[in-house]
Amino acid sequence: MSIQHFAPGQVIDISPYGADFDSAASETLIRESHIEVFRFVLTAGKTTPEHTAAGAITIQCIEGEVELGLGDEIRVLKPHNLVYLGVGEAHTVKALTDVTLLITILLQRE
Amino acid sequence: MSIQHFAPGQVIDISPYGADFDSAASETLIRESHIEVFRFVLTAGKTTPEHTAAGAITIQCIEGEVELGLGDEIRVLKPHNLVYLGVGEAHTVKALTDVTLLITILLQRE
Repeated sequence: MSIQHFAPGQVIDISPYGADFDSAASETLIRESHIEVFRFVLTAGKTTPEHTAAGAITIQCIEGEVELGLGDEIRVLKPHNLVYLGVGEAHTVKALTDVTLLITILLQRE
Repeated sequence: MSIQHFAPGQVIDISPYGADFDSAASETLIRESHIEVFRFVLTAGKTTPEHTAAGAITIQCIEGEVELGLGDEIRVLKPHNLVYLGVGEAHTVKALTDVTLLITILLQRE
């Protein structure tokens, strides 16, 4: 995952890659003490292992279509869809097409 | 502001209102202990007074075009643009067109 951070107040482009998807790469956009925002790229057919984030998260679909697995349930996310998951909610992500997700993590820190 | 909350795991549609903008209303989408996500609708020409949020925020432009005022600086946000503001960063929002923003607030709670 390439690392690129933007400063507060800086305008960040989160457009779909579209025809340039071949050059798409996951990247961290914001990393501050209590929040991390990153763009997560997954090519069609790929699935993540079941995992939990380091805090509550929102997942927004920027392009493509994914199956979000939550225990026995599956939710399909398409562009303009947003989901919130509480702390410790285990999930899987399966890319039905080439997809880009915008993930916001609320870091749990002491 | 009408109130509507979605449960964790529920798919939330954050599509632009487009031709239905006349029926658009600001609404709270998620309200949990440490996060609030809401859709903020502002009609062309309207400006918010300078204000600070209850925590660090991200602002994403869903549709339309706004001027985000940060002290003496102005940033223009268009669809697929995202900005992060740290705790206590005073700002104004001026709608250059009818706009919808997705605002995520990291609530600072003891």
